[in-house]
Amino acid sequence: MGTVPHAPTIHDIEQAREVIRNSIHITPMFHSQTFSTMTGANIYLKAENLQRAGSFKVRGATYKISRLSAEERARGVVATSMGNHAQAVAIAARSLNVPSTIVMPEQAPLVKVMATQGYGSRVILHGATFEDAYAHARELQAATGASFIHSFDDPDLIAGQGTLGLEILAQTPSVDAIIVPIGGGGLISGIALAVKLNRLDVQVIGVQAEGADAAKRSLEAGQIITLPNLNTISDGIRINSPGELPFAIMRSYLDQIVTVDDKETMSALLLLLERSKLQVEGAGAVSLAALLHPGLLNLEGKNVVVLLSGGNIDINLLGGFIEHGLVAQGRITTLRTLIADRPGELKRLLTLIADLDINVREMTYYRTLQPAPLQENEVTLMLETRNHDHLEQLLAVLQEQHYAVTTVHSSLAASWGTATG
Amino acid sequence: MGTVPHAPTIHDIEQAREVIRNSIHITPMFHSQTFSTMTGANIYLKAENLQRAGSFKVRGATYKISRLSAEERARGVVATSMGNHAQAVAIAARSLNVPSTIVMPEQAPLVKVMATQGYGSRVILHGATFEDAYAHARELQAATGASFIHSFDDPDLIAGQGTLGLEILAQTPSVDAIIVPIGGGGLISGIALAVKLNRLDVQVIGVQAEGADAAKRSLEAGQIITLPNLNTISDGIRINSPGELPFAIMRSYLDQIVTVDDKETMSALLLLLERSKLQVEGAGAVSLAALLHPGLLNLEGKNVVVLLSGGNIDINLLGGFIEHGLVAQGRITTLRTLIADRPGELKRLLTLIADLDINVREMTYYRTLQPAPLQENEVTLMLETRNHDHLEQLLAVLQEQHYAVTTVHSSLAASWGTATG
Repeated sequence: MGTVPHAPTIHDIEQAREVIRNSIHITPMFHSQTFSTMTGANIYLKAENLQRAGSFKVRGATYKISRLSAEERARGVVATSMGNHAQAVAIAARSLNVPSTIVMPEQAPLVKVMATQGYGSRVILHGATFEDAYAHARELQAATGASFIHSFDDPDLIAGQGTLGLEILAQTPSVDAIIVPIGGGGLISGIALAVKLNRLDVQVIGVQAEGADAAKRSLEAGQIITLPNLNTISDGIRINSPGELPFAIMRSYLDQIVTVDDKETMSALLLLLERSKLQVEGAGAVSLAALLHPGLLNLEGKNVVVLLSGGNIDINLLGGFIEHGLVAQGRITTLRTLIADRPGELKRLLTLIADLDINVREMTYYRTLQPAPLQENEVTLMLETRNHDHLEQLLAVLQEQHYAVTTVHSSLAASWGTATG
Repeated sequence: MGTVPHAPTIHDIEQAREVIRNSIHITPMFHSQTFSTMTGANIYLKAENLQRAGSFKVRGATYKISRLSAEERARGVVATSMGNHAQAVAIAARSLNVPSTIVMPEQAPLVKVMATQGYGSRVILHGATFEDAYAHARELQAATGASFIHSFDDPDLIAGQGTLGLEILAQTPSVDAIIVPIGGGGLISGIALAVKLNRLDVQVIGVQAEGADAAKRSLEAGQIITLPNLNTISDGIRINSPGELPFAIMRSYLDQIVTVDDKETMSALLLLLERSKLQVEGAGAVSLAALLHPGLLNLEGKNVVVLLSGGNIDINLLGGFIEHGLVAQGRITTLRTLIADRPGELKRLLTLIADLDINVREMTYYRTLQPAPLQENEVTLMLETRNHDHLEQLLAVLQEQHYAVTTVHSSLAASWGTATG
């Protein structure tokens, strides 16, 4: 573990803590009986999703902007982001009375545009992609002399994120391991420095999404890898390469880095909602997802802090996750079958369903036109059952009654059953 | 404000606090910038949804069971509940090593049965309704000599809930008003006693669901009213009459009691999720709903604590709320129209939609059979738009192109728009 050039020192991180003290919340640390029982470890949830603007990002942004000179502040700051960084820069700039401009792609969700404007930023919608918006922000910066606030590759920003590491050590002195999400690597770099420069015995474990694992690949290759494609629901960590400074810090200070798939992330996110009453975003759920993946981490009997890094999830996306979760639990299923085209046949099928106290949520029924000895019609049913057993009961009855049934959701349900079971 | 016979004293509530100290969490109090800005008051959220077993109920249940004699404890406790009280009694009994039996109706959701069993209770499924289960629990109690733990009408239970009032005063000494949900009245009775016996100047305001307003009607009538029917999504406060002791306490100690409708509750629940990252149940959202109802409470400039009493919402129900919320925000709409039955007409309609960058989520299209000079087919589209303006753009284009459009969700959207705007 050597010294990394340009990395913040423990003094820098402690100074950041003093500077941002009145601009951020000290977020709660909850002990979770549920997840302790599930894992055999002693699990604490660090609820940074309850931070101002809904994520840790406000820590780094506030410290970064505070470090600008009076002259620099007067010229304002510029950033590009579709998510947490935009809101964090907006709120940090306002608290320091610095004008801010955020460039977002034209198709950015209105709810994020409005939230960022609500914190007092000027929002410019430009271009079709993040790269277009980024290029425009750089032009703006050059033209106005404003300071560009990078979202992860900056020593002051990393020192600000590091305050979260100090806070975890103070709230949970007995901690043995901390699990942290990784996108560009700014967050885990700050935490790893804060932790390892104080307590070498505490493990720092990073988690990436399987479809956006540039940091993991880079550490394995010994050089920065840029991914051509990204594929994950966790937009907060959908980053195609780690920053240079974070890469150097991670090389020196990380104990382990693992990946989780999106189904595990969705399952963890729903468990946090159902059991802990906390809303997190995809990126905020990956650390729990890694912990719950059997055999992935070896932490039995340890005191483990799971970092829930942010809570800014689109409500539409959350609705979709809930539907998937219900399918996984055997509570929603779509079935398709054929029935003879004569009076009473439809009623006969619906009677079998109703007798098992199963609710029909949606249904389509239509005449098929293929030539057949006996005309048959197709019926598709979306059903609400109590659980997998209840669904199995229905399938057994239908088989006994010679219905040929296709379960439309079955493959998803099967894989989810594994992830959540 | 007279003395209420049998009501707990401030000494009883302080004693309850000492007794249950190690069995419960001190739940966090969050200042909310969002809701302060929306209301012009200074708003604090008391996050009792993060309590053990997901609601305040564990406070009263723990104190009640602790007050039983050694002999009574050995004979165990019995309760009837489909919700928070069941889990609270189970967890409280386990922490005091007392055997517990919970009777639930046969159709109780499996997830609640399993949660209650998970806390160590014997669960008996009996009868079709809550009343059947209650009768059976009373029989069991008579046969076994167990103690019956009522969910709101009991002085020890009320003293336990009162600890929440002490906690609020300690966390927010500057508080001017506390807004509390009311079902049977046990929670607000405990809080009102704890608050008024310490600080007469702090207002205690109760909130009921419009379709379950027995306590409000009883206070207005000066006698206990039993409602023949209950109609609200907030199952935690779906109670047809207040308890006798709570009624007497509420008569003496409440400043105000108001109602909210289910749409307001859903809207508040979704705002808590989106803005505060906290999951609450319907009953846990009514206090915020009352605060956000324009003109209902007169609290501008005051320090207001909004009690989020519980977080145990069925994930299926939450999914439904999210869909309604999206409709209300103009982000999902179902339209129906007729188009001429000839090649290219369907494509023409879908082109208008795609050109506005609107996503089609579901669609049905079928031939109508009514006699008409020109055969027309019916198309129903579920669409994803960015907001109301985006939807209005589409409706304007469709009108210009002479489509006769019916908005299937429009009345719901309109009323929601009011509630959330």
